[in-house]
Amino acid sequence: MIAPTRDHFEALKAIVGDKGLLVPAGSGAGVETDIGTGGSDLAVYESCVRYGRGQAAFVVRPASSAETSQVLAYCQAAGITLIPQSGNTGLVGASTPDPSGTQGVLSFDRLLGTVESATQGSGNIIFDEENRSVTVGAGVRLSDLNAFLAPKGYVFPIDLGADPRIGGMIATNTGGARFLRYGDVRQNTLGVKVVLADAQGTELDLMSGLRKDNTGIDWKHLFIGTTGVLGVVTEAELNVVRLPQQTTAALLVPRDEAAVLKLLLEMEERCDTNLTAFEGMSAAAISAAFDHVPSLRNPFPNGEIPDYVLLVELSRTWAKRESEQSLDELMEVVLAEIWEDEDAPDQDGPLENAFIGRPEEMWALRHALSEGVKHAGKLVAFDVSFCRGDLMKFRAFMATELPKKFQNVRICDFGHVGDGGLHFNLSISNDDPRLNDANFIPSLRNWVVKIVVEKYHGSFSAEHAIGRSNQSFYDDYTPEKVKKLAAGLKALTSAGELGAVKLG
Amino acid sequence: MIAPTRDHFEALKAIVGDKGLLVPAGSGAGVETDIGTGGSDLAVYESCVRYGRGQAAFVVRPASSAETSQVLAYCQAAGITLIPQSGNTGLVGASTPDPSGTQGVLSFDRLLGTVESATQGSGNIIFDEENRSVTVGAGVRLSDLNAFLAPKGYVFPIDLGADPRIGGMIATNTGGARFLRYGDVRQNTLGVKVVLADAQGTELDLMSGLRKDNTGIDWKHLFIGTTGVLGVVTEAELNVVRLPQQTTAALLVPRDEAAVLKLLLEMEERCDTNLTAFEGMSAAAISAAFDHVPSLRNPFPNGEIPDYVLLVELSRTWAKRESEQSLDELMEVVLAEIWEDEDAPDQDGPLENAFIGRPEEMWALRHALSEGVKHAGKLVAFDVSFCRGDLMKFRAFMATELPKKFQNVRICDFGHVGDGGLHFNLSISNDDPRLNDANFIPSLRNWVVKIVVEKYHGSFSAEHAIGRSNQSFYDDYTPEKVKKLAAGLKALTSAGELGAVKLG
Repeated sequence: MIAPTRDHFEALKAIVGDKGLLVPAGSGAGVETDIGTGGSDLAVYESCVRYGRGQAAFVVRPASSAETSQVLAYCQAAGITLIPQSGNTGLVGASTPDPSGTQGVLSFDRLLGTVESATQGSGNIIFDEENRSVTVGAGVRLSDLNAFLAPKGYVFPIDLGADPRIGGMIATNTGGARFLRYGDVRQNTLGVKVVLADAQGTELDLMSGLRKDNTGIDWKHLFIGTTGVLGVVTEAELNVVRLPQQTTAALLVPRDEAAVLKLLLEMEERCDTNLTAFEGMSAAAISAAFDHVPSLRNPFPNGEIPDYVLLVELSRTWAKRESEQSLDELMEVVLAEIWEDEDAPDQDGPLENAFIGRPEEMWALRHALSEGVKHAGKLVAFDVSFCRGDLMKFRAFMATELPKKFQNVRICDFGHVGDGGLHFNLSISNDDPRLNDANFIPSLRNWVVKIVVEKYHGSFSAEHAIGRSNQSFYDDYTPEKVKKLAAGLKALTSAGELGAVKLG
Repeated sequence: MIAPTRDHFEALKAIVGDKGLLVPAGSGAGVETDIGTGGSDLAVYESCVRYGRGQAAFVVRPASSAETSQVLAYCQAAGITLIPQSGNTGLVGASTPDPSGTQGVLSFDRLLGTVESATQGSGNIIFDEENRSVTVGAGVRLSDLNAFLAPKGYVFPIDLGADPRIGGMIATNTGGARFLRYGDVRQNTLGVKVVLADAQGTELDLMSGLRKDNTGIDWKHLFIGTTGVLGVVTEAELNVVRLPQQTTAALLVPRDEAAVLKLLLEMEERCDTNLTAFEGMSAAAISAAFDHVPSLRNPFPNGEIPDYVLLVELSRTWAKRESEQSLDELMEVVLAEIWEDEDAPDQDGPLENAFIGRPEEMWALRHALSEGVKHAGKLVAFDVSFCRGDLMKFRAFMATELPKKFQNVRICDFGHVGDGGLHFNLSISNDDPRLNDANFIPSLRNWVVKIVVEKYHGSFSAEHAIGRSNQSFYDDYTPEKVKKLAAGLKALTSAGELGAVKLG
């Protein structure tokens, strides 16, 4: 790979126009900035929210699929490496350049719509109410999409703490806190337009908008969750759903660890798809949130935080009718049923305590966990997942075994019990001398992931895909056969004129 | 491709055992049968339910993934073509041999479980209640899976008129009548085990059972909906859901064609995911059902069948509680709300009439349509789909234009308005002399599909995938770029030792 020079900048500027290109000061093309200087105002393109600090050779910002195609074709021919970057809210180093200063950032900032002139706000979102779908540019932010949909009574139902752009959500196949009811991005993607990284920057239009269509390979799935490696998604057609009009939430205290899954099955049976979230929060994570987000109210009696707390939410898309039970009442009835279960009298039932309250307050606590654990010390974070029944078993194993292997490492996890996803966070005191040892955190990370994958058959990346942070785990835990297939597919999608592909 | 001989049969018998192989009488290997004779008791392997009449050289029935792998590797090396066959309930000629007598049938009959000795009934289904999932062999019938799940309170929620085996459901990505609520097979498949058609019969184990997992390409999607072309699925891990405990249904008569979509949006808004089906039935299809299935009761006043009737269903997974409204009451309230909508007074609202009745009776009518139209004359059937808003527009276009182009062809369609799927059936009098013209039906089919794809951007195969019946449409309507990618992928998955793949 080469270090891009002024000639390259001129060529890119000819494709995307002056304001589509950010270059280091003195480069004489595009918008000259302090990109690549290390102290940049535009550091947002060079580092992730939580990890990574790289140096960009330039930032190219195409405003359409066609421009993206030309940019990819040009960079492919010139031997320039591009790192696709969407909202840059990921946590695994997938969207920022390395420190070499030779990589360009392909930003989705201006991929705002299907009309090339759409360059701001929510861009040119096309809403098809009859099909319950929207067509959006990859650069549209989730919050902008939902602000556009809300007055119409709809929402794109992927609920995240961050505010990514749609392209990145597709590239990582995010799931979030309401997966249990709505599924992940993949399940809500009806079509994509994608540009391959081949010599032509081949555009594939896979935008049918159809819900049932089985006329061959469903190609869009290759570009969902694969971080742009096989092609860059520039537009998407997405499923949307009715915005909930009634919501109620409760904090449940399970009797013990085994009670957590019992409560999940009970709630699913008794509430069906009214159940829109079933989240788990450890005492350590809750405590860190209270310490660092003072506006939160502690809802527990005497302020005593239980060992583990579940946030359960019910919702419905219609306003409560006079003739029917409210969701608050349903929640009360359901919790009473679980409480009074004849098979498991009070003292032995799965529920130790429950608090029904304002959903906003409970979600404020849930969403503050991430901020809290960030401030509690040096954070070593994992985004892992399990078959649902294994999540609590993994936690129990770690509570016992981690201290034997790594002393003074605090577990402050939370996650999505309803879908098996776990944000397994470890916190280390900032003045711990082991942090001076460059091998300490890698060895801790390797040990945890080994337990996740080998002992519990879990995933080392539930919803952040592969980035630099996960590359070594991909290398270690992907079967050789699968790696060879992936290499073959990568070669196929980047082989230039597709007709030139030779196999066997 | 070669005509298999006794040596081939002996080799196959060595893999699958005596009862795993059916061969023509006098072949001296496996079970000698009248397969390949044209008048076979085993004609079930040689012809589809509705179309196709082929001749099998043999039927091989491996009982495990490992046997499947050996069979595929052997046939690949020997140059023998295998046609994978699951429940053989498909309608597009994808699962039966051609008339040459040289093709072998790879039957899923004995792929009943993950333990090789499981050879009958529901096989060895493994149920993981905490994960809400089952592991099944590809040869397990849908009805057997659901009979296994029902006593446990669960169901695999793909609702079909036929009773296919799981492997075929995955190979065609069936959707069915409750797609609106539960999605298709793809959305309910957590993992597959697959055997590639390469020189080794490479087995890929993609059976994680995880709901959130983004650690590279999600390979399973290549084997869903692709009729075994890229590999044969031998086992699957499937999502299951709670069995509904309350169900109510109604027949709605829309004011006019435009009212159909209005009713769909109204029902979605007012019933949320309680809405589990929204099916459309034409008067011609209903009439054919009444004519040919005498046990059906005609529920319409004076027996007068409306032009178009919608079957809507609400369901919930819990038994009605004393404290809450029943689903029957909810249906009444919702229909009254739509009826009394201030924006659209009675006479102008989308609802002309409605009948709440016994769900079983309404579904009996719905499921009898298929049988009815089969008896109404020579049937020319299409399984097409549209963006939801285009389905009724296509119907209206056809009602006007078809008679101009093809006289005396009766439209008797029905379908899944809630997901855009349409069983567009045409019926021609059995004594119509045009049936003697071999070009007549192909030209009719070509014209209809051209309208579907070119004018309405629909799919020529909503949920039956590609078979011989659809091959020419795939050839005509798949972009060249996509065909080349598909050919490349086929070459990649069948290239022999994956390490030997060379590209570019």
